[in-house]
Amino acid sequence: MTEMPEINFRSDNVATVSPEILQALAAANSGPAASYGDDAQSAALNRSFSALFEADVTVFPVSTGTAANALSLAACVKPYGGILCHEHAHIHTAEGGATEAFTGGAKLIPLPGEQYRLTADTLGRAVSRIEWGVRNKPQPDALSITQASEHGTVYRLDELAALGDIAHGAGLKFHMDGARFANALAALGCTPADMSWRRGVDILSFGATKNGAMNTEAIVVFDPSLVEPLSYRLRKAGQTWSKMRFAATQLLAYVEDGLYLRLAARSNGLATRLAQALAALPGVSLMAPVEANLIFLSLPPAMIDAMIAGGARVARRSDSVIRLVTRFDGREEDIDRLIEIAERASRN
Amino acid sequence: MTEMPEINFRSDNVATVSPEILQALAAANSGPAASYGDDAQSAALNRSFSALFEADVTVFPVSTGTAANALSLAACVKPYGGILCHEHAHIHTAEGGATEAFTGGAKLIPLPGEQYRLTADTLGRAVSRIEWGVRNKPQPDALSITQASEHGTVYRLDELAALGDIAHGAGLKFHMDGARFANALAALGCTPADMSWRRGVDILSFGATKNGAMNTEAIVVFDPSLVEPLSYRLRKAGQTWSKMRFAATQLLAYVEDGLYLRLAARSNGLATRLAQALAALPGVSLMAPVEANLIFLSLPPAMIDAMIAGGARVARRSDSVIRLVTRFDGREEDIDRLIEIAERASRN
Amino acid sequence: MTEMPEINFRSDNVATVSPEILQALAAANSGPAASYGDDAQSAALNRSFSALFEADVTVFPVSTGTAANALSLAACVKPYGGILCHEHAHIHTAEGGATEAFTGGAKLIPLPGEQYRLTADTLGRAVSRIEWGVRNKPQPDALSITQASEHGTVYRLDELAALGDIAHGAGLKFHMDGARFANALAALGCTPADMSWRRGVDILSFGATKNGAMNTEAIVVFDPSLVEPLSYRLRKAGQTWSKMRFAATQLLAYVEDGLYLRLAARSNGLATRLAQALAALPGVSLMAPVEANLIFLSLPPAMIDAMIAGGARVARRSDSVIRLVTRFDGREEDIDRLIEIAERASRN
Amino acid sequence: MTEMPEINFRSDNVATVSPEILQALAAANSGPAASYGDDAQSAALNRSFSALFEADVTVFPVSTGTAANALSLAACVKPYGGILCHEHAHIHTAEGGATEAFTGGAKLIPLPGEQYRLTADTLGRAVSRIEWGVRNKPQPDALSITQASEHGTVYRLDELAALGDIAHGAGLKFHMDGARFANALAALGCTPADMSWRRGVDILSFGATKNGAMNTEAIVVFDPSLVEPLSYRLRKAGQTWSKMRFAATQLLAYVEDGLYLRLAARSNGLATRLAQALAALPGVSLMAPVEANLIFLSLPPAMIDAMIAGGARVARRSDSVIRLVTRFDGREEDIDRLIEIAERASRN
Repeated sequence: MTEMPEINFRSDNVATVSPEILQALAAANSGPAASYGDDAQSAALNRSFSALFEADVTVFPVSTGTAANALSLAACVKPYGGILCHEHAHIHTAEGGATEAFTGGAKLIPLPGEQYRLTADTLGRAVSRIEWGVRNKPQPDALSITQASEHGTVYRLDELAALGDIAHGAGLKFHMDGARFANALAALGCTPADMSWRRGVDILSFGATKNGAMNTEAIVVFDPSLVEPLSYRLRKAGQTWSKMRFAATQLLAYVEDGLYLRLAARSNGLATRLAQALAALPGVSLMAPVEANLIFLSLPPAMIDAMIAGGARVARRSDSVIRLVTRFDGREEDIDRLIEIAERASRN
Repeated sequence: MTEMPEINFRSDNVATVSPEILQALAAANSGPAASYGDDAQSAALNRSFSALFEADVTVFPVSTGTAANALSLAACVKPYGGILCHEHAHIHTAEGGATEAFTGGAKLIPLPGEQYRLTADTLGRAVSRIEWGVRNKPQPDALSITQASEHGTVYRLDELAALGDIAHGAGLKFHMDGARFANALAALGCTPADMSWRRGVDILSFGATKNGAMNTEAIVVFDPSLVEPLSYRLRKAGQTWSKMRFAATQLLAYVEDGLYLRLAARSNGLATRLAQALAALPGVSLMAPVEANLIFLSLPPAMIDAMIAGGARVARRSDSVIRLVTRFDGREEDIDRLIEIAERASRN
Repeated sequence: MTEMPEINFRSDNVATVSPEILQALAAANSGPAASYGDDAQSAALNRSFSALFEADVTVFPVSTGTAANALSLAACVKPYGGILCHEHAHIHTAEGGATEAFTGGAKLIPLPGEQYRLTADTLGRAVSRIEWGVRNKPQPDALSITQASEHGTVYRLDELAALGDIAHGAGLKFHMDGARFANALAALGCTPADMSWRRGVDILSFGATKNGAMNTEAIVVFDPSLVEPLSYRLRKAGQTWSKMRFAATQLLAYVEDGLYLRLAARSNGLATRLAQALAALPGVSLMAPVEANLIFLSLPPAMIDAMIAGGARVARRSDSVIRLVTRFDGREEDIDRLIEIAERASRN
Repeated sequence: MTEMPEINFRSDNVATVSPEILQALAAANSGPAASYGDDAQSAALNRSFSALFEADVTVFPVSTGTAANALSLAACVKPYGGILCHEHAHIHTAEGGATEAFTGGAKLIPLPGEQYRLTADTLGRAVSRIEWGVRNKPQPDALSITQASEHGTVYRLDELAALGDIAHGAGLKFHMDGARFANALAALGCTPADMSWRRGVDILSFGATKNGAMNTEAIVVFDPSLVEPLSYRLRKAGQTWSKMRFAATQLLAYVEDGLYLRLAARSNGLATRLAQALAALPGVSLMAPVEANLIFLSLPPAMIDAMIAGGARVARRSDSVIRLVTRFDGREEDIDRLIEIAERASRN
């Protein structure tokens, strides 16, 4: 019933589960435990993440990134509110209107920005254009950014700080979609605190599934005023697992001894190697700097065809554009193989 | 980090994960696979459940029973619609208004019934009272029942058929909340088809978590017209796992070779034994027949106090009423222990 | 195109528009004016009602009672919240789930009470049963009562005060559905302040349409914290008229020199006379004291048949139960006529 | 309490009520009538509009344009659906997210287009890009256009037909926001049928308030499958007036003997005259052709200052851009006065 390993660069959500996490699940499977987060592992999760983030945080495991984003934002935003975000933000382009639904109809306010990142300038201008008090215009209450971005780029700490300052100055909560938080962290080499609340982040969608967990993400809440409303919204959304300890267990294992960083570093490293080799070929160019584990390439259509014919799964965005994603469990030989296919196609 | 086993009769959601399911997860963890349900295991899941239910069914794994119920019903019900259900139905009393939210404000129409079950008579009268076409009254589009019920009782097949006939006669979809579907099935000794679509059920919340799965429930869709709308609603609700194969794997293992029935039969058997022993004590009486794995008891307050003092976790509903729930992984010695405590209290 | 006057006791919403209000509309129709409530009449409305209610109030005209109730409550209630109300409250039984929809899925928590009124005892017990902090249970944030009630009965001032005290003690906002506020006020002979904020009412659906206005109701906000959120919710609900001055004009005329009280007193008086005459007949009994303009009667089916045959429009609730509603513009001769029909039927 | 006439070009919603409509209201105010649209005038309204539109239509009066648009679209669109519209469409930029809220979270998909109009080319490309069947992408079910547009421009009949063909070819309902339907109709000189269902329009927000009615708009439904769902949604939204006949009466008077066209023609004529005179001045240019009653001008900031200093109310969009709106009840002398102010400023 299982599938053969294949040269798969389609997405990091095709990954396996990290063995350490599977082992932790097995180890945790002893005897009954309180449900809905009243168990010992869930308590340990809050302690562990509070230590990790050097702050008192509350952690809510959820089943998907869409749930993490939409419910985090619903806790921040009024039904007549608005959310400033990048025009290519996942919440705007690829979550089926989940945020609009869970907020009761708030508006996403998309902003432009190179390589899928917002600049302080753009955000500042957008904030200055907000029509506060105008009853038929959304009244923004949140900024949402994605770190690492959907283009595989990473905000620098000073950029985050500038965005956070503007957001808070305008009374906006600062949400970070961290579906690839670990990859960004590995890229920057800073602490989780430095990349989040120390730069103003109030609430974080903390991705784990793409980087080794089994269908488990987390919402990490820095702003304590958001904890209670979020807890009810999650339950009402069907996002509060009864056997919560198995989600907590995964997240505990995920961060223990820096596992999540090692996994992300490996994934990032594979991307760097693959990107460099491909970009060195004639007719191939990177569309964005490769800072995490996503590679966007412009390349000859025939080279894409050759990759596909060679058994590689890639996300083709147009005739001559592909996205490649590397994974914590990616195999060096698959990298070698894809490079070899590309080189051969390049010589023809 | 794990907890000591304890004499826990609080709920079946305090249970562990069935070892067979954990093993299946480990076995499935090889190499990449397509995401969001496009993988081989998800396809196998539809085949497996179609065989199990002797019908072409579509299966959507979801993270919780609340999600299963609310989203199943949202696929059946208009925002100006209504849902006939028992006044003690979980969807009405214990899911925080999830159904109201996901349907866009449909009304639950609670009906009375002994032992938390609806009779055909009651349903028939309710249907005859529906004010069709009256614009300020909900226009019902679904009947929802719970099998086994929240009181631990089980609808007989002819009762289900009668309810299904009335529902369909009134143009209502028939939803079954099967959080304890396996326990009911084990009690009746019939086939899954007999207890569902052959009696008119259109869509089923198929519980697995309480009976051995790890935070994985399923929606089983018999009425093909509900498949497409449900698939979008699930994605929008943040209920479509990216690594769906790990949910599919659990559900495949759960039903393979009748595992789910063996687990439920064990749980039911423990309940029967415990209930008989306790009900034989003076001052103790069953508040409902014990047909699945739930026991509702009226007993002397001092006996409850003794149970709690003896380390037993029970759901105390009042001074003299408790609910006890047995589990697939319950220990015979815990049953013995609780009976012993009760007997000793009875002698004092 | 207009209809012939008929003996119509079906409802007070079959009424005409009070001539004073029509004249005010004509008088106000001169030259352009700012839109969406930024006009002089809307400002005057706030001043006029602040004087009337002896408090700084904000008035939002809306198009229907359903909008007034559902949006008032949406401003008070969280999506995971709840609203305590009578089981026969109009918001629960006759507004098609509007409150559930506008609140994002809050639960109505219906309570029993004789003659459609809640007692302090019942409310107190309900409040004591609230499961605060339980994540899968609604967390109530409002009490809603109807004054005069849907049964035509009127809460006394001390009863209102007791309900208000309990509500505030539990942290609930106190909403009054005053679809027949004027009728209740005329019955009690107290001031608007005495029947509202002085007894703890935070927000009031102030009915006008049934008592002489032309499709214009008002939300009167006593609690200033509700003003801003409500203003946005109204706009988003399509309830902010562009030519708001014509709604303001109606409401100004409605309360000027006590017009609304005179209209309601007339309506109440007709009800009293009609009820006394009918209740004196054999086999006829009042099902609730007639305190406003609603009469609920138990009477011989043949007498109802005779009324209908005689051209009277009544709301027949069962074979032997009818509701009669009198209006500010009711005609004495219609009262006489209905009494005569009933007396004749009584003699046969 | 009334205001002095002023030189007001801010919007057409600052207008008075047409005397014919006020008179009709007074004439209709005789005796009781059935409520909620079961009255004779409401029946006459359906007949009158069916004759006007040369088709069997159903008319639902509503209180605002926002309600008309959002509820029309909610009847067409699934919660996981989408609506193609112009990026400057009123539903997207100026209705506070009403459509997102009433649809349960559908996405608006904004498209570019000169002078706030969509071309068939742009729509065709957008339709070809729809990712049908992709579960995390909105699945469009409607096209919405504004006629006359928010820029005062008017779609030609062949343009409407082309849009309608593309919409229907893609399975989309075709909604027209006709807040200024009469102005567009007067501009084109065609029949209502030609500008609506004969070009594929399925449902129409038929504006009346800006052109003489008193806070009354209408939804005109051509596609009979939308009638029933819309009727319930309106009631649940608090948009079903109890004294519906007074809304019906207005709309009957509005279209009787072509009143609405005469009013719109007058408004359009004033706009043409004003635009021509201003555009002839040095430094002044029209930003869009003046086809209805909206004028968008680029002009010297000092000239705008002079207008404001001279008592004119205009909508200033930037230092050098204003919008002027003429009205059915606009005064020739106000047009003269504004031209004179501009000419004087031009000479300085």
